[in-house]
Amino acid sequence: MQRTYAIIGTGALGGFYGARLQRAGCDLHFLLHSDYEHVRQHGLICESPDGDFTLSKVNAYADARDMPKCDVVCVCLKTTQNHLLPQLLPPVVKDDGVVLVMQNRLGMEAQVAEIVGARRVVGGLCFLCSNKVGPGHIRHLGYTLVALGEFGKHGISERMRTIADDFRRANVETELADDLDVVRWQKLVWNIPYNGLSVVLDATTTELMTNPQSRQLVEAIMREVVADARACGAAVTDEIIGKMLSNTEKMAPYRTSMKIDYDDHHPLEVEAIFGNPLRAVQRAGAASPLLEQLYAQLKFLDARNVAVPR
Amino acid sequence: MQRTYAIIGTGALGGFYGARLQRAGCDLHFLLHSDYEHVRQHGLICESPDGDFTLSKVNAYADARDMPKCDVVCVCLKTTQNHLLPQLLPPVVKDDGVVLVMQNRLGMEAQVAEIVGARRVVGGLCFLCSNKVGPGHIRHLGYTLVALGEFGKHGISERMRTIADDFRRANVETELADDLDVVRWQKLVWNIPYNGLSVVLDATTTELMTNPQSRQLVEAIMREVVADARACGAAVTDEIIGKMLSNTEKMAPYRTSMKIDYDDHHPLEVEAIFGNPLRAVQRAGAASPLLEQLYAQLKFLDARNVAVPR
Repeated sequence: MQRTYAIIGTGALGGFYGARLQRAGCDLHFLLHSDYEHVRQHGLICESPDGDFTLSKVNAYADARDMPKCDVVCVCLKTTQNHLLPQLLPPVVKDDGVVLVMQNRLGMEAQVAEIVGARRVVGGLCFLCSNKVGPGHIRHLGYTLVALGEFGKHGISERMRTIADDFRRANVETELADDLDVVRWQKLVWNIPYNGLSVVLDATTTELMTNPQSRQLVEAIMREVVADARACGAAVTDEIIGKMLSNTEKMAPYRTSMKIDYDDHHPLEVEAIFGNPLRAVQRAGAASPLLEQLYAQLKFLDARNVAVPR
Repeated sequence: MQRTYAIIGTGALGGFYGARLQRAGCDLHFLLHSDYEHVRQHGLICESPDGDFTLSKVNAYADARDMPKCDVVCVCLKTTQNHLLPQLLPPVVKDDGVVLVMQNRLGMEAQVAEIVGARRVVGGLCFLCSNKVGPGHIRHLGYTLVALGEFGKHGISERMRTIADDFRRANVETELADDLDVVRWQKLVWNIPYNGLSVVLDATTTELMTNPQSRQLVEAIMREVVADARACGAAVTDEIIGKMLSNTEKMAPYRTSMKIDYDDHHPLEVEAIFGNPLRAVQRAGAASPLLEQLYAQLKFLDARNVAVPR
């Protein structure tokens, strides 16, 4: 039986994975906001080093209440829009369906669980470089990996395998994670230094890796985040640091998602990427001074950036 | 007997104190660079809430070798120009004269002592809000205090009292410090958060004090610098923090000296204000993560700012 997928938020991330899944034969339903009219008429364009393709016809919706109930509901909104989820999710998810939380942030599954119940929540951690360059127009730059993990319990479930099969057919790399918290924290090891410093220092990943002091700072922040993860009980090891540094050095100059939001004068995901981990560390009784300073700097910049577009 | 003073570097700081001393009857000799021709012809203008005044005739020099040997040689250069001191100081200071180091930085007296001998060095810590707004044109905004202290030993010397008398006659507040290191570190408690964050966050002191997160960060940095001072053996106490926060809150919006340098694409005094204290803390075996992160951020911004004026 062909599984039905809903994409809640058809941007750089949701648009990319949704388009790949539809091309692979899944039944896709896309929720859109500002791009709705354009995508309804023209479909989706997906450029990629793996080959460009166009979906001239997609099921586009402006209102979640018009969507069919789906087997898998992918949450791909910016976390700054998460206050909308109590309206958006209930109409779209089947009773025995799954809500796949694809936001690369900490603590989002718990929010979703309050809405649809913990038993329906699976986490999907995305390692993806992609930007939305126009309405319904996605430019994929590299990486596709989605790491799947159950929320609130360890182990690899049957439904994780089923979803992973669909993604693999869609030419998306997958990984089945025994412990979702570990992969969430691993992702923060990248997100905290690069998203934070890209905004504070107005820099691409390449600039941050080229200047010796900022490169050293990136590494110091990574070490702190690994220690934070351990303080919170997630068994992240230092090995990941060298891997992430050398992967990032090999990337083309990359403008992080937070930097793109900042340049567009959109609200930054400061709470989801920085505030939630910081509070988790503080609850665990530990200190995280570099994270704390970045958090305060970003809160300052975000408040001014949204209030007074320059 | 009327004392002779040399001002090495006639900018916002040297120009202010020099002009006040000359008005009070001291014999002043000003070393200038880019403003030499203008000041030779037109003298100095000093605006101040205490009253404006003009010195239409001053002893201006473009070359230290043309200056007379003076009783008190005030070092008022930006620390980024300190590599010039081995040429500038020896011709100007009397055998039994004093070099008064008025740079609000850590470790500058030691540099000067290597050139003129430790016995001739006195530190002068300036609490002054003043800007140079044109050639030979100083705008004083508030504060005048100079805290004087012997270099390399404790106690209040006769020559400190003599210099303080001249400054007091010039309507400059003075303080005689038993321990120069303590006042140097106290000044860093202000300089590190405000100079650093003003550049990193593109902000005035008022903006930093108004946003709750940046205000909290300023205070956290101050606490760290007080701990750094103690780790380095300087008996600075926490009381200073509340005093500095409330004084700064009462100030008019102030653009720090480092922010002015940054906006003018001049090299920043990162090593003198951040690097030297950081290395002192590290030598003492302590950690200072907030300072370390600010240092790295400023090194990154400074390198790009000087390389590519925007």
